[in-house]
Amino acid sequence: MELDFVAWLKKRLPTSQHLRLGVGDDAAVLDWASPELVVTTDVLIDGVHFLSEEHDLRRIGYKALAVNLSDLAAMGAKPVGAVVGLVLPSSGTASATPKEIAVEVMEGMLPLAEKFDCPIVGGDTNMSQGPLTIAITAFGQPTEAGLLRRDGAKPGDAIMVTGELGGSILGKHLDFTPLVDQAIDLVSTGLIHAAMDLTDGLGIDLARMCEASNVGAIVDQSAIPFSQAAKKASEASGKQPWQHALSDGEDFELLFTLDQENLDRIPFPMEYKCTQVGVITSELGLQLREPTGNPIPLKPLGYEHQ
Amino acid sequence: MELDFVAWLKKRLPTSQHLRLGVGDDAAVLDWASPELVVTTDVLIDGVHFLSEEHDLRRIGYKALAVNLSDLAAMGAKPVGAVVGLVLPSSGTASATPKEIAVEVMEGMLPLAEKFDCPIVGGDTNMSQGPLTIAITAFGQPTEAGLLRRDGAKPGDAIMVTGELGGSILGKHLDFTPLVDQAIDLVSTGLIHAAMDLTDGLGIDLARMCEASNVGAIVDQSAIPFSQAAKKASEASGKQPWQHALSDGEDFELLFTLDQENLDRIPFPMEYKCTQVGVITSELGLQLREPTGNPIPLKPLGYEHQ
Repeated sequence: MELDFVAWLKKRLPTSQHLRLGVGDDAAVLDWASPELVVTTDVLIDGVHFLSEEHDLRRIGYKALAVNLSDLAAMGAKPVGAVVGLVLPSSGTASATPKEIAVEVMEGMLPLAEKFDCPIVGGDTNMSQGPLTIAITAFGQPTEAGLLRRDGAKPGDAIMVTGELGGSILGKHLDFTPLVDQAIDLVSTGLIHAAMDLTDGLGIDLARMCEASNVGAIVDQSAIPFSQAAKKASEASGKQPWQHALSDGEDFELLFTLDQENLDRIPFPMEYKCTQVGVITSELGLQLREPTGNPIPLKPLGYEHQ
Repeated sequence: MELDFVAWLKKRLPTSQHLRLGVGDDAAVLDWASPELVVTTDVLIDGVHFLSEEHDLRRIGYKALAVNLSDLAAMGAKPVGAVVGLVLPSSGTASATPKEIAVEVMEGMLPLAEKFDCPIVGGDTNMSQGPLTIAITAFGQPTEAGLLRRDGAKPGDAIMVTGELGGSILGKHLDFTPLVDQAIDLVSTGLIHAAMDLTDGLGIDLARMCEASNVGAIVDQSAIPFSQAAKKASEASGKQPWQHALSDGEDFELLFTLDQENLDRIPFPMEYKCTQVGVITSELGLQLREPTGNPIPLKPLGYEHQ
């Protein structure tokens, strides 16, 4: 199976300008025109991050690369390439052999790789008795504007999010576009103090940013931009849409901070929606300001990986 | 579990001179003092590449990094860093919780990372119902002497192997030292035409090198250096030790070729054993020369990943 799949891959993978040596040798070799390497890895597992019985294999492959590109975006880095480790269920699925699974996963990934000029340069393919597992490592380069870290938030900063949050489980978690261009846009302003992507929910991710930056935050409940999906989810859950927006995972939007005084130096809205949801404080801990103006402690709600 | 393990990792991972940003942000950032990036990935799975019920978790962690460093060695590249994706069995094992498994695997890996100055710079940790899975991506840099590829073998080249082959399953597959220094030694001679590491058995790996190089090979049966483990394995299997040396996987020795006329320009034996096992031919296909001098077709014996 592996040799057969590798033969398919060699034909299917597009050539790439900066790729010196691709699939087929002991390692891949890329030209590297940067004094820094930005590297991230995410492992997606059937039954944990997707459901192969429900979700199209191409969407799964797309998501597996997209979450890695979202991490590079969160750093303000430009994607340059990725390697893909596949563990295929040896008995296949009801409708697909292991090789067919591998092909579908890659076919879902490749248009995204092309869109962001992030060639798949190598990988490793195995079979096991376990669930379909996709382990991707993506590498990128900073732009001249430098990188975005999560530990630079300062008291007085505006807390901003892109897009609309919540209810990602209804579909967006498989179809989102990683905000690579938007992040490079933001980093190029030179005004961003801290940034990360929202993976586990605004509540818990903001708590992580605050912890890394040794600051606290007040979030305005009424300012949290919630999505149509969050509204839909709230109809089923009985929770409020803003609660979904605060605690649902896998938004893959950007969370960032900048000096409130600089807000008018960035042409918000840029080509994408940005919303101020609160303010960074020197006092540690997170607070939620209710519409009445009343502040209550905000527990870091969200999806915590067990 | 994940946050707890990440907190442990942050304390446990040594600082590294060229690491700008390690575990804890969306991605890691390293200084990159090379115009090229060499990157390799290997996924090891319980029940396929190791047996967590039999093998010590530290040896398993060691092996997971070692196979990646062996791939970098096969390119003649110097390791610079690695990221580690872990999928932990959510119910743990008979004797270890998921976190204990993660800690043991990392404790097995870290001395090797230190030995080769290859810091673990990031990762991703998850749990699932499936088997323990370790997905490592390692990145390296070429030396000034360039890289070793597998597609450069030329007719008339001597076919060389390091060390002694066969019977790795009796222990070496968990304890081998990746031949990073030896490979850099070899590439620095400027005389090596092709190289790769032996992962699936000399027979099948030589066939791959020949296919990549569009050449054939004659192997001298009596020249194949077999290990004590190959002898031991042959007692149980009824096969000859040279057959084990030819077909057993996971030797993690180096296979390389150079012009026969240059053999005396390399001070063999260097600080490690090198043995000529045959000659590259312009005629395609592999042949085995029996001790009688009789050549017979050599099927690419070895472990083929299914």
